[in-house]
Amino acid sequence: MEEAYRVERVKSGIQGFDDLIEGGFPKGTTVLVTGPTGSGKTTFGVQFVYKGVESFNEPGVIVTLEERAQDLRREMKAFGWDIEKYEREGKLAIIDGVSAVVGLPSEERFVLEGNLNAEDFLRYIYRVVKAVKAKRLLIDSIPSIAFRLREEKRIRNVLLQLNTILLEMGVTAILTTEAPDPSRGKISRYGMEEYIARGVILLDFMERDVELKRYLLIRKMRETKHQMKKFPFEITNEGVVVYPSGEVY
Amino acid sequence: MEEAYRVERVKSGIQGFDDLIEGGFPKGTTVLVTGPTGSGKTTFGVQFVYKGVESFNEPGVIVTLEERAQDLRREMKAFGWDIEKYEREGKLAIIDGVSAVVGLPSEERFVLEGNLNAEDFLRYIYRVVKAVKAKRLLIDSIPSIAFRLREEKRIRNVLLQLNTILLEMGVTAILTTEAPDPSRGKISRYGMEEYIARGVILLDFMERDVELKRYLLIRKMRETKHQMKKFPFEITNEGVVVYPSGEVY
Amino acid sequence: MEEAYRVERVKSGIQGFDDLIEGGFPKGTTVLVTGPTGSGKTTFGVQFVYKGVESFNEPGVIVTLEERAQDLRREMKAFGWDIEKYEREGKLAIIDGVSAVVGLPSEERFVLEGNLNAEDFLRYIYRVVKAVKAKRLLIDSIPSIAFRLREEKRIRNVLLQLNTILLEMGVTAILTTEAPDPSRGKISRYGMEEYIARGVILLDFMERDVELKRYLLIRKMRETKHQMKKFPFEITNEGVVVYPSGEVY
Amino acid sequence: MEEAYRVERVKSGIQGFDDLIEGGFPKGTTVLVTGPTGSGKTTFGVQFVYKGVESFNEPGVIVTLEERAQDLRREMKAFGWDIEKYEREGKLAIIDGVSAVVGLPSEERFVLEGNLNAEDFLRYIYRVVKAVKAKRLLIDSIPSIAFRLREEKRIRNVLLQLNTILLEMGVTAILTTEAPDPSRGKISRYGMEEYIARGVILLDFMERDVELKRYLLIRKMRETKHQMKKFPFEITNEGVVVYPSGEVY
Amino acid sequence: MEEAYRVERVKSGIQGFDDLIEGGFPKGTTVLVTGPTGSGKTTFGVQFVYKGVESFNEPGVIVTLEERAQDLRREMKAFGWDIEKYEREGKLAIIDGVSAVVGLPSEERFVLEGNLNAEDFLRYIYRVVKAVKAKRLLIDSIPSIAFRLREEKRIRNVLLQLNTILLEMGVTAILTTEAPDPSRGKISRYGMEEYIARGVILLDFMERDVELKRYLLIRKMRETKHQMKKFPFEITNEGVVVYPSGEVY
Amino acid sequence: MEEAYRVERVKSGIQGFDDLIEGGFPKGTTVLVTGPTGSGKTTFGVQFVYKGVESFNEPGVIVTLEERAQDLRREMKAFGWDIEKYEREGKLAIIDGVSAVVGLPSEERFVLEGNLNAEDFLRYIYRVVKAVKAKRLLIDSIPSIAFRLREEKRIRNVLLQLNTILLEMGVTAILTTEAPDPSRGKISRYGMEEYIARGVILLDFMERDVELKRYLLIRKMRETKHQMKKFPFEITNEGVVVYPSGEVY
Repeated sequence: MEEAYRVERVKSGIQGFDDLIEGGFPKGTTVLVTGPTGSGKTTFGVQFVYKGVESFNEPGVIVTLEERAQDLRREMKAFGWDIEKYEREGKLAIIDGVSAVVGLPSEERFVLEGNLNAEDFLRYIYRVVKAVKAKRLLIDSIPSIAFRLREEKRIRNVLLQLNTILLEMGVTAILTTEAPDPSRGKISRYGMEEYIARGVILLDFMERDVELKRYLLIRKMRETKHQMKKFPFEITNEGVVVYPSGEVY
Repeated sequence: MEEAYRVERVKSGIQGFDDLIEGGFPKGTTVLVTGPTGSGKTTFGVQFVYKGVESFNEPGVIVTLEERAQDLRREMKAFGWDIEKYEREGKLAIIDGVSAVVGLPSEERFVLEGNLNAEDFLRYIYRVVKAVKAKRLLIDSIPSIAFRLREEKRIRNVLLQLNTILLEMGVTAILTTEAPDPSRGKISRYGMEEYIARGVILLDFMERDVELKRYLLIRKMRETKHQMKKFPFEITNEGVVVYPSGEVY
Repeated sequence: MEEAYRVERVKSGIQGFDDLIEGGFPKGTTVLVTGPTGSGKTTFGVQFVYKGVESFNEPGVIVTLEERAQDLRREMKAFGWDIEKYEREGKLAIIDGVSAVVGLPSEERFVLEGNLNAEDFLRYIYRVVKAVKAKRLLIDSIPSIAFRLREEKRIRNVLLQLNTILLEMGVTAILTTEAPDPSRGKISRYGMEEYIARGVILLDFMERDVELKRYLLIRKMRETKHQMKKFPFEITNEGVVVYPSGEVY
Repeated sequence: MEEAYRVERVKSGIQGFDDLIEGGFPKGTTVLVTGPTGSGKTTFGVQFVYKGVESFNEPGVIVTLEERAQDLRREMKAFGWDIEKYEREGKLAIIDGVSAVVGLPSEERFVLEGNLNAEDFLRYIYRVVKAVKAKRLLIDSIPSIAFRLREEKRIRNVLLQLNTILLEMGVTAILTTEAPDPSRGKISRYGMEEYIARGVILLDFMERDVELKRYLLIRKMRETKHQMKKFPFEITNEGVVVYPSGEVY
Repeated sequence: MEEAYRVERVKSGIQGFDDLIEGGFPKGTTVLVTGPTGSGKTTFGVQFVYKGVESFNEPGVIVTLEERAQDLRREMKAFGWDIEKYEREGKLAIIDGVSAVVGLPSEERFVLEGNLNAEDFLRYIYRVVKAVKAKRLLIDSIPSIAFRLREEKRIRNVLLQLNTILLEMGVTAILTTEAPDPSRGKISRYGMEEYIARGVILLDFMERDVELKRYLLIRKMRETKHQMKKFPFEITNEGVVVYPSGEVY
Repeated sequence: MEEAYRVERVKSGIQGFDDLIEGGFPKGTTVLVTGPTGSGKTTFGVQFVYKGVESFNEPGVIVTLEERAQDLRREMKAFGWDIEKYEREGKLAIIDGVSAVVGLPSEERFVLEGNLNAEDFLRYIYRVVKAVKAKRLLIDSIPSIAFRLREEKRIRNVLLQLNTILLEMGVTAILTTEAPDPSRGKISRYGMEEYIARGVILLDFMERDVELKRYLLIRKMRETKHQMKKFPFEITNEGVVVYPSGEVY
């Protein structure tokens, strides 16, 4: 009567990446994508949600707190991703956490209004996820939430509550944060983001002569055998591409 | 009338590890397992408790504060460990410190309810340990306790009280914590976890080219002769395997 | 009906630089120029605004908080830039954030008066930008704003409000800040400037023997493919010149 | 009438060590033994007191704040040291600073009761030292005292008072503490332990390949000529053994 | 009608130095001289003021907050500089910021009396500068001002006010401060001194074997083309001498 | 009528040292001796005062805050220095800052009584200096003063007041303090000790293989030409001996 062990996998939509994690993220997992400024965290996260809709017909939600929805849409067109199309089809929703919070009029459908209240913020995400029956979620980024709180250190509580609703919603989620000093073990800005995530992926640079080479390192991925190795990746015309057999050096 | 000196040993259930510590942990010892994100602390700790039941018929308790009980169970199936079976037999209990704390309904038998009150939390663990006559205990993890306290720095008092009840219960226990910068001597997040433990094991990585190699280092083990050496280990299909004669380089 | 993807580019006016970012900054983008003392941030920023007027007939505004307007004008003459001429033509405005704030009489047309109140400060910039129909804006520098606040840490709120008005005004803007330790990932003084900017450019030095060589590194530029490489640059008689094919070593 | 200069020496009981310090510790000196977790501080300290009784017939007192008296006794049997025997003979007393403080019943003769009040704590030690006419004292450890204070930073005052009573009692004493970063000069946790000690001994590790080699370094020893050299040592079946002519490398 | 661009230069009086900065400091500029203890900041600053009187007939003021006026005079005689002579001629004034502040009777003409009140302090300097018609000013040092404030962090406001009066007075000024860690970008003690200065000169040491070689580095000099290079310098019998073509190595 | 320039020199009494500083300390100077634990600061300071009496017939005062007077006397006998003899002759006074402060009865003539009140403390030193007509003074150490203050950070004010009375007394003085990280420019514990001293001498160690070699570095010495070089020194049977032509390596 004991059923055989099988982890349900969610294809990441990141070219070359699923090979590194036994075929995809464990379903329902929260994954932290961390790294310094310009390391490609937003692209990685959007690609995960967008490809979910495009290739696997899984609705998704993007919570954007660093860029306005309209900027994000335009930016992603560079990779040939037509977010608007799927928004019209009701398969993808962007929650604009910039426009309204900063007091600008917004023509967005999903907008965080007024002051950022942690409870309302999380409840709103919950409702939109349910509305589009989302299977995938991106929250970009945790520091951007924290800056908008009255006291930055209250982020601790928000993260614990976020943890709760992520578990409730059952989505596979990517959260982005900042890694202040990965080489010395500091892989998250608030030192606790990794505790609410079942996977941690570091996007970072290595300096080779005067060039900074991008690499990806899977620091943690529950229920998944993975190599602890720095894999080269690039941001191409078609988004993030990881080279599992490449060499960073 | 003076009895000959003999330390009673508790087999760790970690393949290759007991050879490093004269056959096992000293019975009744509290051992701190420390290391960065993704270093294998949870697996190490669960393996200790699970193998205790499976191979040595010693009941055990797992207090999980980072992952829900159901996720932990599923994850451990990857190593062929059927936790549920022993739960049904009453030999292993998981205290779910995530579900209820985050306000989710839980079908778990042992659940930490409502807000995390340090005294209640510790008393509850005590009761469950007594209920299953546990000989082994895992608390995963200390930072997860701290994050849930109103003030993170109150963890100091909780650890002192935890120390008390660990001594009272007489179990052999593993506590996990985070090592922010092991190479420079910082082996615990709150700088005092090592003071309530009679053993300290570091699980960490070493970078070789672009690969991170896992190693295990026994920093302290009272009543035990052990080498101060970085031993390679892997997380295999059957859990943690240490290579006492292997080379990390 | 789907229009082809095209990012409108704003020529930087920095010789050799536009080649690195697909022809110019994405229009309407806020770019953070960061680096240590003496790295050329002010020159870079003024050149962007000045060349906008001179070569592309785009009006601009310079908010100077480190130097008095008169000093800045004189200093820029060394590069052959006649700021006053364009001021007279109403195409370029300097907001003097030093003279009046420090209590000196000023003959400037645009002067920040009395105590630096964050709301008034931002509103004033807004009005001047609108008055000259500016397309380009420089604010030099963020730490200089922060020092003038009653509590330096209130800069957090000012930056969030600044973010709002930058989005409203629609200008392409350069903000300067200080990078305390770029080699270890600290690229902004307050750790959040990069979050309100869609581009981040680092101007820094590398030591070669006893000489410090200037280099430029694009850490982030949304909607733009760029190399992650340290490009040499110099401050010549004609301002900043970047050498896209040069070698720093 | 001027008597010739002679420092009275107290044999350490540490094999190989007295050769390094002109035959022993200056009588009545307080010596700080510092180092990271697992460096052998407790063993060093207990050996000093135990050998004092066994080999030199000098009564001694051990204040144990990290381990219960019963654990310490059992642990020391591994070195063939029968502490209980000398306790029965009234020549050695262990003050149990763990059992009662943590609220456990204790069958110990000398127990610190209830909350740790700095004055009572020090007075109790004084009384026991006088009761057994102790010539040697070990307090293991200073951080363990500090953790039990209401505010950890009050340790400053406790150390000054401890200084007083150590001078009054006239014993030769070892205090243990933690060295957070010896290679960069931080040799004590609270930055002032070394000021109340006339000798400072560092027990630490050096990494050689993947092995951590133990070494001992005498940082300060008043009234004593000593080498400033890292001497290898081991923890053998008979306790700490220092190799004055050995090489760590 | 547009006058040709020309920066008026103020000869530094530092042998070999003016060649590095197009003939001298831009007139009216505030220059920060920073470096560690013993790096020659005071000598550099005094030489600038003294040589101004001696060689260029420009009156000057020295505000000495680290040394008493009498000590400074005596010390400078070692370089053959007869400060008193020019004081008698009314061309050079020393404001003694030590004697009176510390409560000692002073026979000095210009003395800061009683408690150091920031406003009075700055007003007094202003008056003396006007009285001697000073063209050059040295304030040695900023940390010495800060230590005398009730709260050291109030130095922020004092520096902003100082900025104001320096602009008003129109003198060419040198301020000295401390560089805690120049190699990692920390070039000023309070992290904002460089923001009120249009030039920044670092005096520092480089270790060669067991010898510390002095070097000078111009980090910033507005309106001036300068090399970013570490130039060797010495403190000779005739004061600071820079070697523009020398090698530190 | 202008007298020729001549700095009056005070022989240090440290063998080999005066050659490095043009024959001795400038008379009336305050010199900071800094370094880590065990670097020889106390010996250096006592030697300066003792040799002053013995060889140059200059009375002196030693303020000892780390060791009791009796311990210091005994310790110094190892170098053949008979402090008591000169005390009896009224040429040398030790102010015991340990015994009474810690509440112990003291048979010392000069004792700091009761709580350490900064004003009384300084006034007492003043009186003893005047009583023995001291020309030399040692205060060992500044951190020991700070630990005894109610708030350690009040040391700032005490140091400013100390500065005053040192100037008043006209003695040549040595103050000792702690250098937490000399290699990175941190040469004093409170970051301001060097500002009240006209000379700064660093005593430190360099590691050569497993041996720590002592070296002395003069960081600052006003009115004195000196090399910026690490000179080897030893603590011999006759006290500190510096080797001006020796090599540390």
